[in-house]
Amino acid sequence: MSNSFGTLFRFTTFGESHGKAIGCVIDGCPPGIVFDLGFIQAELNRRRPGQSSVTTERNEADEFEVLSGLFEGKTTGAPLTFLVYNKDQRSSDYDKLKDVYRPSHADFTYEKKYGLRDYRGSGRASARETLARVIAGAVAKQILKKEGIGFNAFVKQVGNISIPAAAYPLDLNLTEQSIVRCPHKETSDKIIELIEAVKADGDSVGGIISCRIQNVPVGLGEPVYNKLHAALGNAMLSINAVKGFEIGSGFWGSAMKGSQHNDALNIKNHKITHLTNNSGGVEGGISTGEEITFNVAFKPTSTIAKEQQTINIQNKNVQLSASGRHDACVLPRAVPIVEAMAAVVILDFWLMRFGYEGGSRLEREV
Amino acid sequence: MSNSFGTLFRFTTFGESHGKAIGCVIDGCPPGIVFDLGFIQAELNRRRPGQSSVTTERNEADEFEVLSGLFEGKTTGAPLTFLVYNKDQRSSDYDKLKDVYRPSHADFTYEKKYGLRDYRGSGRASARETLARVIAGAVAKQILKKEGIGFNAFVKQVGNISIPAAAYPLDLNLTEQSIVRCPHKETSDKIIELIEAVKADGDSVGGIISCRIQNVPVGLGEPVYNKLHAALGNAMLSINAVKGFEIGSGFWGSAMKGSQHNDALNIKNHKITHLTNNSGGVEGGISTGEEITFNVAFKPTSTIAKEQQTINIQNKNVQLSASGRHDACVLPRAVPIVEAMAAVVILDFWLMRFGYEGGSRLEREV
Amino acid sequence: MSNSFGTLFRFTTFGESHGKAIGCVIDGCPPGIVFDLGFIQAELNRRRPGQSSVTTERNEADEFEVLSGLFEGKTTGAPLTFLVYNKDQRSSDYDKLKDVYRPSHADFTYEKKYGLRDYRGSGRASARETLARVIAGAVAKQILKKEGIGFNAFVKQVGNISIPAAAYPLDLNLTEQSIVRCPHKETSDKIIELIEAVKADGDSVGGIISCRIQNVPVGLGEPVYNKLHAALGNAMLSINAVKGFEIGSGFWGSAMKGSQHNDALNIKNHKITHLTNNSGGVEGGISTGEEITFNVAFKPTSTIAKEQQTINIQNKNVQLSASGRHDACVLPRAVPIVEAMAAVVILDFWLMRFGYEGGSRLEREV
Amino acid sequence: MSNSFGTLFRFTTFGESHGKAIGCVIDGCPPGIVFDLGFIQAELNRRRPGQSSVTTERNEADEFEVLSGLFEGKTTGAPLTFLVYNKDQRSSDYDKLKDVYRPSHADFTYEKKYGLRDYRGSGRASARETLARVIAGAVAKQILKKEGIGFNAFVKQVGNISIPAAAYPLDLNLTEQSIVRCPHKETSDKIIELIEAVKADGDSVGGIISCRIQNVPVGLGEPVYNKLHAALGNAMLSINAVKGFEIGSGFWGSAMKGSQHNDALNIKNHKITHLTNNSGGVEGGISTGEEITFNVAFKPTSTIAKEQQTINIQNKNVQLSASGRHDACVLPRAVPIVEAMAAVVILDFWLMRFGYEGGSRLEREV
Repeated sequence: MSNSFGTLFRFTTFGESHGKAIGCVIDGCPPGIVFDLGFIQAELNRRRPGQSSVTTERNEADEFEVLSGLFEGKTTGAPLTFLVYNKDQRSSDYDKLKDVYRPSHADFTYEKKYGLRDYRGSGRASARETLARVIAGAVAKQILKKEGIGFNAFVKQVGNISIPAAAYPLDLNLTEQSIVRCPHKETSDKIIELIEAVKADGDSVGGIISCRIQNVPVGLGEPVYNKLHAALGNAMLSINAVKGFEIGSGFWGSAMKGSQHNDALNIKNHKITHLTNNSGGVEGGISTGEEITFNVAFKPTSTIAKEQQTINIQNKNVQLSASGRHDACVLPRAVPIVEAMAAVVILDFWLMRFGYEGGSRLEREV
Repeated sequence: MSNSFGTLFRFTTFGESHGKAIGCVIDGCPPGIVFDLGFIQAELNRRRPGQSSVTTERNEADEFEVLSGLFEGKTTGAPLTFLVYNKDQRSSDYDKLKDVYRPSHADFTYEKKYGLRDYRGSGRASARETLARVIAGAVAKQILKKEGIGFNAFVKQVGNISIPAAAYPLDLNLTEQSIVRCPHKETSDKIIELIEAVKADGDSVGGIISCRIQNVPVGLGEPVYNKLHAALGNAMLSINAVKGFEIGSGFWGSAMKGSQHNDALNIKNHKITHLTNNSGGVEGGISTGEEITFNVAFKPTSTIAKEQQTINIQNKNVQLSASGRHDACVLPRAVPIVEAMAAVVILDFWLMRFGYEGGSRLEREV
Repeated sequence: MSNSFGTLFRFTTFGESHGKAIGCVIDGCPPGIVFDLGFIQAELNRRRPGQSSVTTERNEADEFEVLSGLFEGKTTGAPLTFLVYNKDQRSSDYDKLKDVYRPSHADFTYEKKYGLRDYRGSGRASARETLARVIAGAVAKQILKKEGIGFNAFVKQVGNISIPAAAYPLDLNLTEQSIVRCPHKETSDKIIELIEAVKADGDSVGGIISCRIQNVPVGLGEPVYNKLHAALGNAMLSINAVKGFEIGSGFWGSAMKGSQHNDALNIKNHKITHLTNNSGGVEGGISTGEEITFNVAFKPTSTIAKEQQTINIQNKNVQLSASGRHDACVLPRAVPIVEAMAAVVILDFWLMRFGYEGGSRLEREV
Repeated sequence: MSNSFGTLFRFTTFGESHGKAIGCVIDGCPPGIVFDLGFIQAELNRRRPGQSSVTTERNEADEFEVLSGLFEGKTTGAPLTFLVYNKDQRSSDYDKLKDVYRPSHADFTYEKKYGLRDYRGSGRASARETLARVIAGAVAKQILKKEGIGFNAFVKQVGNISIPAAAYPLDLNLTEQSIVRCPHKETSDKIIELIEAVKADGDSVGGIISCRIQNVPVGLGEPVYNKLHAALGNAMLSINAVKGFEIGSGFWGSAMKGSQHNDALNIKNHKITHLTNNSGGVEGGISTGEEITFNVAFKPTSTIAKEQQTINIQNKNVQLSASGRHDACVLPRAVPIVEAMAAVVILDFWLMRFGYEGGSRLEREV
């Protein structure tokens, strides 16, 4: 298995949904950094189950402890280890799933690849693994915040309800006021209604999250095989249930002509800007200095209460109605995950360009 | 710069569009393999400029030579080096671009990142680099073909013209009969017409390529950070002009409900199949054994003859009409590139699972 | 920092000597393996402080817990996480070292590189980190044992006392009967005497550990940059206090002629053997099938009670007599560490050659 | 195979001894660097065969060409590709070796690992591959020279002749005046005599090369798994015929006590120095700012004219007297190879610490 992510800022996650704990080891964090541990908890709270009426009822406070890497409140350059003990597992919910493969879930592929699987809460296939990403992302966000770099993801679409074109430009300060993390009130209300209906029906629904990254300097990203948007795409496609990624104009831009699509460069008062941003802040794999914008498509979660055709491990056709506590729509809780994965990618490229020393020097001098 | 791709089957490309040569070194190719060098040339011919009326007029035969790695016609396990000398550069075409940044091109970001750039034919930013990928892909395809694994990409959409739903299922044997590599005759004709109009107008146009991979065994891919579709996404997003990637139902699937979207498993005559394939052949990051299907969105190429606003390296606003020989639509030539990148990803995961030895044993025993 | 080791079998260690805990995450362990957890504890006991009169008095039981990766007693392919809580820290011992750099210790270089350091027990620079390596090694040893591959390290020299030539061949079953892990009784006795004298004198002493690996199949190792002995050398040189590595004849062989040094190949009863083993089981970077033999040189530990000249962080010359609990000679406790690092290297190359699947298939079929 | 070396400054070599060409692709070279191509050739000349009476008679000018990566005389950040065509192969020399395994050579292990081998001049196992390392090293040396970092390797011992203790400190400016690259005239003369005698006898002889690196700043190297000396050891052990590596006091230091071995720190006139350098310039895996010193042990080359017992590929015992053109002692030509590998390691760590941008900024500003 590959449970590590990143090159210079590199984290490794471990733990199963119904095991003892979930955690991560972050290697390559610059030394001398003072973290706001409260911010890390706040980010975890944005992802945590049971946070609102539209999320799973599993009730986990997701309080973390730091096992290593901090000394007198500062990072030392040593690996940072974070641990969250699992508390509200109800593994008995999964007895029913022990011998059966949920359609479109990792059950079947895990069993075939590894010859066995941890059926309690799906083991590593559970999105509970992403809490470790949120921790790593919260660390990265704090380092980048000092450079003025900010991350804003939001729910743009759920099912067939999406923010109308007329609602743009959006006020992204409103995102956290919505329990579904959609900054457009009217759309948010409709989405809540949809998720509740879907949930009541024992079904699930997919959607699209948009993310924007402000103040990334020109020059991050590699021009051939480690393009900035390829790394972001790789990061997003590693999130549970994600089936698509597009940067800037994306799929919609493929219908356009060059003369419409090209982002004209302009200089005014010694400041270079692009007059439009169809490129989404990346040209030739390298950041342009404009806002980075991308969309991430999530499929509807596969575990549903509705009856479905499938097979069991004895290779018999069976009908399955999954019970257990599951999100009918993962998008509200996935917003901080998208931001977290974006933050670890940007920090990794930022360190790649400016070096570890560069990464920490600023902090030390203060 | 990052000019290498892959883990166990790993290739490194080098060379500039208007430099002496383009080439690649392939490391990790199993030993004892007999290649059909003619197949590699045939793949290069599918990508080569000047192959039809809708492509750039740059005339390159793109004949390759092998510098290392073959002995008595077989691979030895040593690095394979392939070289294609550039012959039909017309660097003078680029004198005009020396001091100016083409909108939405890598000109601006390269200059800012590296402090200088090879303006002749865009250097490494040129899609001419992809011929080296096609060579690596042709090597991978031949190894995988022995395992029954096949790759079929085709043009699904150009501008706002796409293959109608009623045309499916498609006969992918027809792809190569179309100069734009669209297997649906009627759509192909419209696309040719569109590209010719766009070209005459000094403009460019984007589109979507679909790819299907047959007979990938169950079990390739890592479940957390190196998911098979994340690796494919990373590979596709590394291709010039690509702005989006989706596997299976992708963006369209995000509007669905779980009960519609889930792929029921079924067993019949001891054979397990999925009754639908919205997952696109990957569940939980691991191949399901079903056909792998994904779409790749290409933006319109940025170099166009139409006049555009931009700036020059003296930081002045200027108007630019690019000359030079460019594709008005890159999709027809990008079809073999998409297949090539898919093939190197699949082979890499295949070796990861079965080992070098597994990769070569079969061949040796024959 | 780089706190991970290995390619396919890859572990990451974390934790400081006087922090909460030391642990490791092992990624890439084949699935379906049943471990003897008692064996892991037994290996830790061979490394643990306070095990005999010649080691440091720090008293740590070093009992581990497993946080993830096991399900119903078997590995699942998911990351294995092991944790050992620190219990007998006496950080006050280090107050004296807070502002001063011990000569030949990592104190000075850490401070200069990171701008700060965890002076309690040296943080990550402490050899306490190696307990995590012993755990990873115990996992690797158990997997390789099923393939018949065994590891035997022993103390060959301490200070100027070494096993006499006449004592060879040695009976390596005797190693664990000696508290200094020297299998030659007479030499062992002298070494114990020497260490006790050195300890009483507030000094320390270095030495040489030999390691032998049995039954490695022909063909592990890469012929150019990842030679098997280069990987072993890298692994050994990463152990605290190691200053030298030699395989087979090593430094001594450099005085020989080819006609003396070459290992003649011979075939008898269909079995190929080398008549001598000056190569130490590796030729051209690849294992020969013969026993792998290498030596590892350890300097005397730098923390001593004797008074020494050094500087403090205020850049003043000072005299230092270090207190605290330290080994006067690390070699007895380093024997299992050398074996552990050898085991993780061999398993990594073994998986590289035979693949994850190969690594696990045998186990599953049983 | 693993034919790449390095992390941020990473090169890949390719080509066989009797193939078309040997070359390398260097990825990660900072942009904007002006190279003295004459210096690269001068370094190749130090390694080239036929340079003196004590080396092989194979006559290769080893003139290189640059295929990519330079534009208007400067590096662009794109991969640098260097190519040296083979000219004086006499593959017929190897017909005799086609079916037989030379004792202590890679013949046997290659055949067993890969199932076939390129017997002409040993293919990739030939030390001719190292010319590509010398090129990469020459590039690295030039970048580091601007930082004041210099490399001096020399022959310290051949067979049982070594520079006497009384001859130290040495004048390393004399190294290149000796055809065997031993800076001590008297020892050099004896070594020449020895090599000539050994050569006349159809035999070979080993030896030791010492290397010193000046002006490496404090702080390069990772403290746990990528220790600076572990990386240097790995690099040296990857050179053909190397069987041992030691830094600073090495094996000799293992007989010492801590009170003798520790390098006292001292400050005088605001300058921190170590009063001795038994550490060899590295403490805790990180450079101390003192001169880096290490020794590399080479075995006698395995290909000799004297008759030896071995087996052939038909598994029969045979007697072999190897002909062909071979060095009786590789050390004189290995001196630039040791320096080259040291230079690529130091540059890699230097970039890791200061970042790509840092690496190139200085140069650009001039």
